[in-house]
Amino acid sequence: MSSSGLNMSRRIRRTPYTDRVEQHGVRGFSVVNHMLLPKAFQPTVEQDYWHLREHVQLWDVSCQRQVQITGPDAARLVQWMTPRNISRARVGQCMYVPLVDDKGGMVNDPVLLKLADDRFWLSIADSDVLLLAKGLALGAKLDVTVVEPDISILAVQGPKAEDLMARVFGEAVRSIRFFNFDYVDFKGTRQLVQRGGYSKQGGFEIYLNDSRMGSALWDLVWEAGQAFNITPGCPNLIERIEGGLLSYGNEFTLENNPLECGMGKLCTLDGTVDFLGLKALQRIAEQGHQREIRGVMFDGGPGPACGKPWPVKVGAEQVGQITSAMWSPRLKRNVGLSMIARSHWVPGQAVSVHCADGVIRPGEVCALPFA
Amino acid sequence: MSSSGLNMSRRIRRTPYTDRVEQHGVRGFSVVNHMLLPKAFQPTVEQDYWHLREHVQLWDVSCQRQVQITGPDAARLVQWMTPRNISRARVGQCMYVPLVDDKGGMVNDPVLLKLADDRFWLSIADSDVLLLAKGLALGAKLDVTVVEPDISILAVQGPKAEDLMARVFGEAVRSIRFFNFDYVDFKGTRQLVQRGGYSKQGGFEIYLNDSRMGSALWDLVWEAGQAFNITPGCPNLIERIEGGLLSYGNEFTLENNPLECGMGKLCTLDGTVDFLGLKALQRIAEQGHQREIRGVMFDGGPGPACGKPWPVKVGAEQVGQITSAMWSPRLKRNVGLSMIARSHWVPGQAVSVHCADGVIRPGEVCALPFA
Repeated sequence: MSSSGLNMSRRIRRTPYTDRVEQHGVRGFSVVNHMLLPKAFQPTVEQDYWHLREHVQLWDVSCQRQVQITGPDAARLVQWMTPRNISRARVGQCMYVPLVDDKGGMVNDPVLLKLADDRFWLSIADSDVLLLAKGLALGAKLDVTVVEPDISILAVQGPKAEDLMARVFGEAVRSIRFFNFDYVDFKGTRQLVQRGGYSKQGGFEIYLNDSRMGSALWDLVWEAGQAFNITPGCPNLIERIEGGLLSYGNEFTLENNPLECGMGKLCTLDGTVDFLGLKALQRIAEQGHQREIRGVMFDGGPGPACGKPWPVKVGAEQVGQITSAMWSPRLKRNVGLSMIARSHWVPGQAVSVHCADGVIRPGEVCALPFA
Repeated sequence: MSSSGLNMSRRIRRTPYTDRVEQHGVRGFSVVNHMLLPKAFQPTVEQDYWHLREHVQLWDVSCQRQVQITGPDAARLVQWMTPRNISRARVGQCMYVPLVDDKGGMVNDPVLLKLADDRFWLSIADSDVLLLAKGLALGAKLDVTVVEPDISILAVQGPKAEDLMARVFGEAVRSIRFFNFDYVDFKGTRQLVQRGGYSKQGGFEIYLNDSRMGSALWDLVWEAGQAFNITPGCPNLIERIEGGLLSYGNEFTLENNPLECGMGKLCTLDGTVDFLGLKALQRIAEQGHQREIRGVMFDGGPGPACGKPWPVKVGAEQVGQITSAMWSPRLKRNVGLSMIARSHWVPGQAVSVHCADGVIRPGEVCALPFA
C-alpha cells in the first residue's frame, strides 16, 4: 500500500481472494470485521456503477463473516437475539434479521441462513456477533456451539450473474429462488450458493468452505466470466444508496432501534416471540419512535465524500443527518441515506443539506429505495 | 484520503482528535475497534522512532475504547472473563488482564482500571468486548450495566512526558506511579490520568470524558509541548517490537491461549479463582502448551513490511511464524515477534525467516523484550 493508505498487518485479515484482488489492481480497502474489503477497481465509482448495472462483477465479500450456531439450543439462541420470528424459516431459506440488545439497540443486521433445524449461520455486518452469541450461550448455559467457520463469500453480482453461474455450476442454479440457497459441486467439494447479495442488480453469493481453494474458485468464475464482460468489483456506494441498502455503523448503530431503521414490519412485538429487547421495543412502539431512516435527494452537482454525518436542516432547526451520500449519474442528483425526525420525515419535505465542504445544498426527503 | 487509501465513512469512527491529527498531516490510518488510529506522521517510521525515544509525542489512541462495567455484580463479571486474580486490585490501580473464552482462547488483552469497588473500565484492544460482556451479563442475569462511555484517550509518550504533564496539569502528576491513575483538573472538569501507555519510553494517558473538549485538550498539551520539542505520534512499530509489546490480532488471536502468549504468570489456575476458561486452561497447563511467543532477530538489512505472517523454519521444518517485524536502526538488525514451537523456543535457536519478498534471512530466537 502507498504511504497514505491503510497499513497492512495480520490483525486486518487478508481473505482467500486478496491475492487475486491485488493482482487486479484494487485501488483501496476498507476494514469490516477485522478483514479487508476492496473499495474500488475502476478509476471512478461511477464507472464501477455502470458496469455493475450492465454486466457482471466478482466481489470479495469474505468480510461478511459467518457466526455458526449449532446444537439443541441453536434456534433458541438465534431467536433470543432477534425480534423477527424465525420459527417459520425453512431449511434452505435466508432471512434478514435485525439483532438487538436488551435496550432494543441494533447490534447487527445479518442474513440468517437456516442450514438445518439445529444449525444456523449469521452472515454478519461489522460487529463481533460471535462474542455476543458466545456470551449469551455461556451466561445462560445453552447447549450450543458458537464458532466462526472457514467460510469466505465470493459474490457474483449484476444482470449477467445468472447466465455466468449457470455456465460455471450448471443450469440448476437458475432454479434457486431469491434469498434461498442450495449446493453446487466445485472440484469435488460441496459449496453453498445463495441467490442474493449486497446490490439490487441480481446475483449470487458463493460461501466457499475452504480457504485454500480461494484462488481456484476466483479463477474458475473469472475465466468463464470473460464471455460476459466480467470485472472485479465491490459493493458500490451509488448503487447501494439508490437501492436503499443500509450499512451497519453508517446508517444506524447501537444507538438506534429497528423501528428507527424502518424494520418495524420485521419485528414481532405482541409477546408471542421472546427475545432480548422485547420489553424495550414494546415501550418504544407504544410511545412511537421519534426518527426513521429516509432518503434525501439534493441539488448541486457532485459533492464531496460524506466521511462524517452531514446535518439536515429546515431553516435553522436540525431535523436529521445524512450518513451516506453520493452523486447519482442516473438520477442526475445527489442521493443520501439519512435519519430524520418524525416531525419532518414525510416524503416531499423540503430540507437543506449542510455538506462537509461548507456548501448548503437544497433537497427533499424521499421514500426508499430511490426511484 | 487519496484514492489508494482507506475510504472514510461514519462506520469507521472519527475521534475527538481527528481534526487536529489531519491538520498535522497524518500520513495514514489503521482501524481499531471501528475507529481511526493514526499510523504515521514523519516521512519514515524510523524518524518517528528516534523522536519518541528522545522527546515527547501526542498520540490519538481513542480507539482503545472503554468497556464500563458497573453495579453490584461488576467485579464478578470482570473476574469471570479473566484468569488473572483481580480481587486484590485497589481503586486507582490498573492491571493487564488477558480475557479468555470457555476454551481458553484469547478474546482481548485490555488494561483494567478499577474506578471503585463496583465500577471498572476495560481499556480494550481490537475486539468487541462490549458484546461479550453484555452477552454474559444478560445470559446469567447479572446485576450490572455495560456500556461504552464517552472516553477518548490522548496519550503523552516519551522521556519528556512527565515534565510536560507537570507543566500542564501541575506537579501532582509526578507522584502517579506506573500503572496507577489519579484525576486532574482540565478547564473545570475532572479527568482521569494514568501513568502508562503503549510504549516503553514512559508517559501518561489522559482519559478525556467529553468528546466536545477534544481539540481544546489537544491544543493545551500541544502548546505547552513546544518547549519540549513535541510532535504528533502514534504507536511505533519499531519501538513496540523492541519493547515486546504484543498486539491482539497480530501476535495472538482467539486461536491462542494465554500460556502461549507468555501470560502464564498472570493466570491463577489452582481453582481459587473461577473464570470462563478455567477447565480448559487447567487441561492445557497439565499437558504443557506447545508454542509460545518469542522474539526473533535476523539479518539482511531493512526488509519488506510484514503484512502477513512469515514462516520461521529450521531446515525444511516450519517451527513458527513471525507476525510483526521491522528493521531496528538501534540494534542494526531486524526484530520480529513470533509464535514458536516448544521444540525450538529456547533463546539462541538458529532459524531462517522466509520473508514476503522471497528472501530467506538467517536469525535466532530471543527472549522478550529485546535488549
